[in-house]
Amino acid sequence: MAGADMHHRTAEFRKLYAKVLGQLKAFIGTQNDVVVLTASGTGAMEAAVSNLTSPGDAVLVLTAGKFGERWAGLAKAFGCKVDGVSAPYGKTFDLAEVQRALGAHVRAVFVQATETSTGVRHDVGAIGEMLRGSETLLIVDAITGLGTTEFDVDGAGVDVIIGGSQKALMIPPGLAYCAVSERAWAKMETSKQPRYYFDLRKERKAAAKGEASYTPSVALIAAMGAALDYIAGVGGGDVAEGRKQLVANAELCAAMTRAAVKAIGLEPFAPQSPAAAVTAVKAPEGMSSTEIVKALQAEFGATVSDGQGEMKGELFRIAHLGYFDYMDTIALIGALEQVMRQVRPERRAELGEGLSAAQQEYARRAAQQRSAATQV
Amino acid sequence: MAGADMHHRTAEFRKLYAKVLGQLKAFIGTQNDVVVLTASGTGAMEAAVSNLTSPGDAVLVLTAGKFGERWAGLAKAFGCKVDGVSAPYGKTFDLAEVQRALGAHVRAVFVQATETSTGVRHDVGAIGEMLRGSETLLIVDAITGLGTTEFDVDGAGVDVIIGGSQKALMIPPGLAYCAVSERAWAKMETSKQPRYYFDLRKERKAAAKGEASYTPSVALIAAMGAALDYIAGVGGGDVAEGRKQLVANAELCAAMTRAAVKAIGLEPFAPQSPAAAVTAVKAPEGMSSTEIVKALQAEFGATVSDGQGEMKGELFRIAHLGYFDYMDTIALIGALEQVMRQVRPERRAELGEGLSAAQQEYARRAAQQRSAATQV
Repeated sequence: MAGADMHHRTAEFRKLYAKVLGQLKAFIGTQNDVVVLTASGTGAMEAAVSNLTSPGDAVLVLTAGKFGERWAGLAKAFGCKVDGVSAPYGKTFDLAEVQRALGAHVRAVFVQATETSTGVRHDVGAIGEMLRGSETLLIVDAITGLGTTEFDVDGAGVDVIIGGSQKALMIPPGLAYCAVSERAWAKMETSKQPRYYFDLRKERKAAAKGEASYTPSVALIAAMGAALDYIAGVGGGDVAEGRKQLVANAELCAAMTRAAVKAIGLEPFAPQSPAAAVTAVKAPEGMSSTEIVKALQAEFGATVSDGQGEMKGELFRIAHLGYFDYMDTIALIGALEQVMRQVRPERRAELGEGLSAAQQEYARRAAQQRSAATQV
Repeated sequence: MAGADMHHRTAEFRKLYAKVLGQLKAFIGTQNDVVVLTASGTGAMEAAVSNLTSPGDAVLVLTAGKFGERWAGLAKAFGCKVDGVSAPYGKTFDLAEVQRALGAHVRAVFVQATETSTGVRHDVGAIGEMLRGSETLLIVDAITGLGTTEFDVDGAGVDVIIGGSQKALMIPPGLAYCAVSERAWAKMETSKQPRYYFDLRKERKAAAKGEASYTPSVALIAAMGAALDYIAGVGGGDVAEGRKQLVANAELCAAMTRAAVKAIGLEPFAPQSPAAAVTAVKAPEGMSSTEIVKALQAEFGATVSDGQGEMKGELFRIAHLGYFDYMDTIALIGALEQVMRQVRPERRAELGEGLSAAQQEYARRAAQQRSAATQV
């Protein structure tokens, strides 16, 4: 964040910002124009609604957790007629049900790539396939999905994809970004929602000159540039390649965690369609996840998240975002073994069983990778 | 390091510096006056020699590794007649031999609390006991010993104890500090070595006014204050209590590491008197430790140190300083298991054996602590 003192109306900032915008395109994996907003991810979610709908528009919101519900709340706040397909917490949608809810009347579909509150991955590609050839817009909150899930944004026909600064980009919260398709830019012209700070067309014009419409969070943009440089470095100078490795790392950590959790005798909350961004784990019967979260923090300084809202106490969530790597994963599993032994002494797994399962998963994947590399 | 812009001739700096000096006394566990030097630890080692000896003085240097040898080099550079008691790398001194080398003619004994190059702990208390009632000064390099070893500095009669900023205080290198006994301050008046930048009497006078003799590394002093505040926080507001917990953490991590290393089939380099600051591990026969160090870095981003000087290739060293905790220890052991399996496939231990041994050691110590707490 060394750029904190840079003024945003200078050639220096314009150069930085243009660089960051280009890197973000590569990070997202899109040819579409990208804009950055000084806001949290929810601000960009609002921008998608306010720039691409009009009051009374029929929209379809796919909800399977707290973040899906946020889409519904936003669309309702902007006067849309909200139809919903929902899945129980811990599951993804029934795609046939989604198909039945679609139609020419639907202005836009809103979905998460990853439902962070339950650790579920949704099949954005399949939903894009259903929409192919239609006029319905596909709007994806990928705040935790970008950098943890590999999918073809443009190939799937995603019209707006949204990311945040504090997730896979590993910098403090305070910036959101989105990539917008050409047809969505066109449709924005006819949208009748009030918008000013989040007017994406204005941001796009400013971005073309390397500027932001309003005073941006310069320090965070500098930090974002540094994070993207880091990701490029991981990819041998190529941001897209670095992102692929970030995703592979998240997938690896998530697989190790799932294997360990089962070996410890715990149950993953989303066994069918688990996200790589976060692994949600059910609290054992008769005990609260809050107790596990607190014990991990108190004894080991290990941060996992409790369930959100009414899921508090029911599950805890282990993140695999950004820098979180093999070392962190092994350490957390070790701590979890110790905590589970202490809080459930009557049902204790042998110490080391979760760790061994994670080690086996790592070794198996590493061997696969080496074998794949040899075959190439 | 947020104090980088503070000028050092201001009330603000004086307040900070006075606070840091007080906290350092508590961190060291001494009633003696403390001064801070803008230099690395070796600068403070030189200050002890240049302020407390005269050319031709007989001094006894206890050497068991690279840092002991540095004492000998310094004393020789200042024209002292250096007698030495040495132990082979990986061992501590024969105390009977030390006793035989002492006598009224010896101006000062120079020793390390922890010989970082080999991971050996020396018994400072026992050496202090031998010197009780004598005029011989006891000068201890505790650059890695402070915050990793609990010993009674004043009770052992330590005349000069030296620490550095980058070790247990967890901030960048660039500052050293030392506590000096009343009799050492007095003896300084008759010492005939040239000294200016490292004149400890001048620093003591300046420190009494909350100042430094020369422009100090203000940003590092601010960082040191923050680190000491953190340590105080660990101790419920008490720096000394925080230090005790830091030491207990280092002892725990070292014990877990030793248990794991043996379970993986490796051999600790200093089995007799292992330091808590660092665990040195022998490279298996027929292979270089450099290979293990590189593989840990390349595959896991895990940093361990190779042997120094002629020990390069012979051993690697795992640090347990400062923030390094249970989580880091477990993670490193996991990585070490994977690396050893890859580099020595023919002699591989089962994955998880080292981790399980570490887990057992943790559980054993945690149970002991709980039992001790119950008895109190």
